[in-house]
Amino acid sequence: MAKLKHSHLSLVHLTIFIITIIASTVPSLASSPRFLGKFSRSSRRNSQSPKQRLQYETRYFAQNLDHFSFSDTPKFQQRYLINTEHWVGPQRQGPIFFYCGNEGDIEWFAENTGFVWELAPRFGAMVLFPEHRYYGESMPYGSKEVAYKNASTLSFLTAEQALADFAVLITELKRNASAEGCPVVLFGGSYGGMLAAWMRLKYPHIAIGALASSAPILQFEDIVPPETFYDIVSEDFRRESSSCFNTIKESWDALIAEGQKHNGLLQLTKTFHLCGELKKTEDLVNWLESAYSYLAMVNYPYASAFLMPLPGHPIREVCRRIDGCPDGTSTLERIFEGISVYYNYTGKADCFELEDYSDVGTDGWNWQACTEMVMPMSSSRDGSMFQTYDYNFSSFQEECWKDFKAKPRPTWITTEFGGHDIKATLENFGSNIIFSNGLLDPWSGGSVLKNVSESIVALVTEEGAHHIDLRFSTKGDPEWLIEQRATEIKLIQGWLDNFYQEKKAAFDM
Amino acid sequence: MAKLKHSHLSLVHLTIFIITIIASTVPSLASSPRFLGKFSRSSRRNSQSPKQRLQYETRYFAQNLDHFSFSDTPKFQQRYLINTEHWVGPQRQGPIFFYCGNEGDIEWFAENTGFVWELAPRFGAMVLFPEHRYYGESMPYGSKEVAYKNASTLSFLTAEQALADFAVLITELKRNASAEGCPVVLFGGSYGGMLAAWMRLKYPHIAIGALASSAPILQFEDIVPPETFYDIVSEDFRRESSSCFNTIKESWDALIAEGQKHNGLLQLTKTFHLCGELKKTEDLVNWLESAYSYLAMVNYPYASAFLMPLPGHPIREVCRRIDGCPDGTSTLERIFEGISVYYNYTGKADCFELEDYSDVGTDGWNWQACTEMVMPMSSSRDGSMFQTYDYNFSSFQEECWKDFKAKPRPTWITTEFGGHDIKATLENFGSNIIFSNGLLDPWSGGSVLKNVSESIVALVTEEGAHHIDLRFSTKGDPEWLIEQRATEIKLIQGWLDNFYQEKKAAFDM
Repeated sequence: MAKLKHSHLSLVHLTIFIITIIASTVPSLASSPRFLGKFSRSSRRNSQSPKQRLQYETRYFAQNLDHFSFSDTPKFQQRYLINTEHWVGPQRQGPIFFYCGNEGDIEWFAENTGFVWELAPRFGAMVLFPEHRYYGESMPYGSKEVAYKNASTLSFLTAEQALADFAVLITELKRNASAEGCPVVLFGGSYGGMLAAWMRLKYPHIAIGALASSAPILQFEDIVPPETFYDIVSEDFRRESSSCFNTIKESWDALIAEGQKHNGLLQLTKTFHLCGELKKTEDLVNWLESAYSYLAMVNYPYASAFLMPLPGHPIREVCRRIDGCPDGTSTLERIFEGISVYYNYTGKADCFELEDYSDVGTDGWNWQACTEMVMPMSSSRDGSMFQTYDYNFSSFQEECWKDFKAKPRPTWITTEFGGHDIKATLENFGSNIIFSNGLLDPWSGGSVLKNVSESIVALVTEEGAHHIDLRFSTKGDPEWLIEQRATEIKLIQGWLDNFYQEKKAAFDM
Repeated sequence: MAKLKHSHLSLVHLTIFIITIIASTVPSLASSPRFLGKFSRSSRRNSQSPKQRLQYETRYFAQNLDHFSFSDTPKFQQRYLINTEHWVGPQRQGPIFFYCGNEGDIEWFAENTGFVWELAPRFGAMVLFPEHRYYGESMPYGSKEVAYKNASTLSFLTAEQALADFAVLITELKRNASAEGCPVVLFGGSYGGMLAAWMRLKYPHIAIGALASSAPILQFEDIVPPETFYDIVSEDFRRESSSCFNTIKESWDALIAEGQKHNGLLQLTKTFHLCGELKKTEDLVNWLESAYSYLAMVNYPYASAFLMPLPGHPIREVCRRIDGCPDGTSTLERIFEGISVYYNYTGKADCFELEDYSDVGTDGWNWQACTEMVMPMSSSRDGSMFQTYDYNFSSFQEECWKDFKAKPRPTWITTEFGGHDIKATLENFGSNIIFSNGLLDPWSGGSVLKNVSESIVALVTEEGAHHIDLRFSTKGDPEWLIEQRATEIKLIQGWLDNFYQEKKAAFDM
């Protein structure tokens, strides 16, 4: 089987979490075609999660750039969104709902995490959405340009520093509001879910519990098989149609063969309606691979526009189009029909621009993946519809050095946060964490899918995709989703009840 | 009452932990007179905790200087002592006893932590004594000279970095020894005890339990009254003799009055047998205050030489001498007689040299106290035999800036590790920690003195001083100490039993 020299690159870049796609202020980044830039962000937002639903103040907090050493670095302004409209206040120990901002603009997360907003009135809660350092407006050194300049300026972009930002912020805000007695509940999705779970583990004095949605805290080292992610993506396609799965699986050879022909790149450019001439087949491979993975993540049962405007069950629609082409349609033409569901569901695009991977240095998540968040990913021979690929740390390391002058520390995350034998650790030490996952989500394979203890609970939905539970409720919500959220509410209520009871008991003593 | 302009300085410097005194390689540091340098370190050691009892290999491990960011800093060699003589090995899941090295030379701690060595054969345990970064031989940048050059080179001297060193070291050593299944038990005294407790809280996946001896994890902010430390020191004297207490309490005015006289400094030089002429009364005040505080810490019931060669119940002896002077002896002469117990119990000193506080930049603990380890300390009007002093953060901050160009972060430790409402946090989250304290130890007031839960236990001894339980057993050990250690052994055995049972249960499933 012919193999592209650099095709593994796409696998590296697929480790970026879904949210970098739109949240990034650099339009050429990640797997979204450039034409997306035509939609102004506000118009897109309004069409999806009506802004009028969200009321918040935007504030800024001066954070130490380095919490764990005392080098002379300038403070930076961390942005956070706050809403106290429903908060019953410090006297009544009103809870504080704290979303652990992840790798993107916090406003975008706020708008895509409707669950927290819908919950606040019910619980009389304050809502806080702090932004993750190095994303959105929360830029060290005053600008993204300087912050992302080199390995030295980027060096403070780590999960531990972000957690410390959260800890300092919440402590100070509570102090200033005389709200020291108010319980904090953490929320987070994807990488933000990992942060929420880790924060509950590392800062149990700060927060009483965490809802960690689609949080692949076990996607490190050899804790889960490296094939997990792509096998799940592939299975999402196979369950819709095995012929669809097979067409995609066959398409890579067809693509490469076409690309090697005389005028083959030009032909591919035409077949895939690219705006500019394709320079190398690899770029097209990346573009397709990314779309399949993202489709698996946002494989929601109702029409949505988390990343792209998509119909409900988008993979079903992709396969319907791939399978539904008239007899005699070539593999590559079928692929184009299918992929258009992802990149052009609105039908407004005349042509597509592929993203430019040469500019990875501007993407925070790629930095994180090249330093701490080293998630080994392979593509298996049989289970995967992608090209076979065996994860190779050495070449990963080389790419990271080339891109960032960064040296990955592949065992650091499990050293700092645990992961091996996580059940025993969580059982003996942790409490009040919900790990919620939908099994359609390829990240679910790296998360906690079994109950660990009475208070460390795995909520698994067979038909769920990437942190669907955190989204605004819709009229199209299936029964299982309504139930899942009800369970989450019940569990959170339980944490709060316990907290108040203990406080009362201590007070009565 | 006359007050020295800079007398509060001594209070700042008293926040250094006892172990810096001898462990430091800079002879002029801390509260020990220079003549101590005459004793070669090895001869002192042999006279106290026979070196033949300790068998270990000295090894080095290349550590990242900065675990929490990816700046381009050079690795440093962390020294650690290892003994596998009694270890039953990975097959039998032999435990690993891990001493959390604190602010000094690790060999000195190894020799003064006999309990761990005595326990190892009984438990079939490996013994590890890793050195704390920036102390002993574990110097970043290859030398103390460079490491202690300025705030920038010192900036990585923090507790969190030290804990991360421990976590990385133990993880790597276990991996290399195929000992991933072996349980780790943490030990630590004083600041090392704080590290042990914090490590158990922050890295529950790394260690199954911690014996935190004399660990003042609550000596921050307003968690305990700032007068606690000096009140306990003073009470240690008052319980022996109220006239002794009163003589010391009166001596400060007498000292200051004397110093202000014509030729007063010369007279003080003579009265206190100083080798060089006293330059300012403050230096003498510091020298005396330090001795009283250290006496309270090492107020052991048997003769010892932890810091200085001393008789059993050394405060009793100090007071016996102060009170026992013939009628008509002046206050200052009495003080000299008393203090000689601390500084010259062997009688070998002809004169005393006071330490030089101007060179604080070479002392790691002072850096730590000026950055993270901000422990407010006051001296109360009535409870204390020291000069009255109200802790003043502003002047503390100014001193730190002057000494180190460092900005203290007074609320950071409690943000990172908790402290307020520690009972609730530990109760709900922690397990398997012993907080052992002797009430004669002035640091006991900032520690955990009440049982928190079934597995977070406070062992309090009325007659104990600074981490006496960690010392080698002696023939002079009182019954309560023997009992205390037996309880500790039983608790540790319980942690291990639980661990093996759980492992077995998981294996049998």
